[in-house]
Amino acid sequence: MSKPVIAIDMGGTRIKIGIVKDSTILASSSISADSGNGLKNKLPYIEKAVRDLLNQQELSCEDIAGLGIASPGIIDSHEKKVLSIDKKFGDAPGIDLQKWCRQAFNLPFTIENDARAALLGEWKYGKAKNYDNAVLMSLGTGVGSAAVMEGKLLRGKHFTAGILGGHFVINYKGEICNCGNKGCVETEASTWKLTSIAKDNNSFLDSKMASLSSIDYEAVFKWAEEGDSVAEEIRDQSLQAWSACAINLIHAYDPEILVLTGGIMASSSHIIPYIRQKIEQHAWTPWGKVNIEEAAFPGSAALYGMSYLVNTDQK
Amino acid sequence: MSKPVIAIDMGGTRIKIGIVKDSTILASSSISADSGNGLKNKLPYIEKAVRDLLNQQELSCEDIAGLGIASPGIIDSHEKKVLSIDKKFGDAPGIDLQKWCRQAFNLPFTIENDARAALLGEWKYGKAKNYDNAVLMSLGTGVGSAAVMEGKLLRGKHFTAGILGGHFVINYKGEICNCGNKGCVETEASTWKLTSIAKDNNSFLDSKMASLSSIDYEAVFKWAEEGDSVAEEIRDQSLQAWSACAINLIHAYDPEILVLTGGIMASSSHIIPYIRQKIEQHAWTPWGKVNIEEAAFPGSAALYGMSYLVNTDQK
Repeated sequence: MSKPVIAIDMGGTRIKIGIVKDSTILASSSISADSGNGLKNKLPYIEKAVRDLLNQQELSCEDIAGLGIASPGIIDSHEKKVLSIDKKFGDAPGIDLQKWCRQAFNLPFTIENDARAALLGEWKYGKAKNYDNAVLMSLGTGVGSAAVMEGKLLRGKHFTAGILGGHFVINYKGEICNCGNKGCVETEASTWKLTSIAKDNNSFLDSKMASLSSIDYEAVFKWAEEGDSVAEEIRDQSLQAWSACAINLIHAYDPEILVLTGGIMASSSHIIPYIRQKIEQHAWTPWGKVNIEEAAFPGSAALYGMSYLVNTDQK
Repeated sequence: MSKPVIAIDMGGTRIKIGIVKDSTILASSSISADSGNGLKNKLPYIEKAVRDLLNQQELSCEDIAGLGIASPGIIDSHEKKVLSIDKKFGDAPGIDLQKWCRQAFNLPFTIENDARAALLGEWKYGKAKNYDNAVLMSLGTGVGSAAVMEGKLLRGKHFTAGILGGHFVINYKGEICNCGNKGCVETEASTWKLTSIAKDNNSFLDSKMASLSSIDYEAVFKWAEEGDSVAEEIRDQSLQAWSACAINLIHAYDPEILVLTGGIMASSSHIIPYIRQKIEQHAWTPWGKVNIEEAAFPGSAALYGMSYLVNTDQK
């Protein structure tokens, strides 16, 4: 019987903290990521949030199997280090998180890439449960991905396999990405780039979006529906870019199912039918159709994945 | 001790036939692929070429471990069938090649995708020999690829994993590819598309290439060197497209080495340094540098790969 786990999901906007037992969240809270100031300054707040949750559940660290962090970036899950991280939490590679975990809680420590953790959650408990070959695409601040092939979570020699779908080149004559690459999926369509994409549009000042200081996809989908031509243009380009990413993930990893998640999927009714149609039209899958599904746990799959991983690590 | 193998490499231009023992070609010949007329009409010629080579070597079918075909397209290596093939040898999915092999030679039959076979050859005997994580990119009539991850040749659930690098979207607003997808690597830069790319250039009639009925990359590289601006433009776009493909393969499969092969690599001195520089500049590999190498056996790696596979299949 598995013990509860402290699971932490370091999102670009909020850091989610949960006491999780398998796929049940016993208690959870979140703090602002305020990621521009890095991770180090956040650790005392995370520690306090964890203690509050433990107290609330009347649990002590002895009742807990371990602590797991789902982090953006490239994560060495063996050495338990952040290797490289794309602007968010930029100080993380220099922090000994395992030591922090031991000093704060005296608990075993696990860390994994956040998209991989989310796919693990969906694979063990959610939409990808009955599949040995699954891919996840996460649309949000950035674009994340992960893959399970032949029943095995893909990590690769240097921990980058599966997770760089957002940095596939889909416009090789395009703009430079945060990561240093050119024409990545993220530079064509993601929340971090959205305001800049909108402002570069020649008709931006005629758009309703010109009144906003920061633009999100909810506004884009809403105003595109209402006939704002700049919003329509951005919506269509973004849907095309995500479809190209999905096709590349399918061509790379040969999955039976593609699970879509991330903050932008709040507008899933605009996204799923489009991507499904483009994949049927364009992906080379002579064997049949890839299932295209919305995540079962859009907000908590990464916490469930870390719960699974921490327990696996302890075996 | 392994027996010799009959290995057949179904290229877009020539069908190569060899009697191969491990990485030694005992005898070989080739016939025109003339692929527009399909594969069925070629089988009697292939059979005759095999018999001639056996006679020449004073071998009978009893001395042979089996017959292996390296074919373009998506290959079900378990059921030993061509599932889907991109215009070349379009009749192949309807042919029972295993039956043909039994009736003609009474030998065990093996079939695999040609880029996978070439990577196997390079992995077992050539440039990728000491690596457990390797990717191959083949530049020729089309663009092929294959991947080995953690010591295992990647095939995937439906046999498409690793081999669709030429059909990664790198220009999501681009043109429709032979495969039905949009903006594939192949539609941006490959020999089948080259003449059409050149003719679409606004300055084509001012170029030396306008005098040719069919254009190849040897001419493009030569005339670009001599200052022909259309050739320069096509060269630069093609190098950018192949670099984007290489970056996507690295982002997808996390290899230690990328092996480049295919007919276009006759101009490798123009290609390798460019791709190497772009990868160093743009690929996200915080662990270090991917080795970028020309194939050890540009003309025969697929034959060696099939020799290895036929012997493995018999064990």
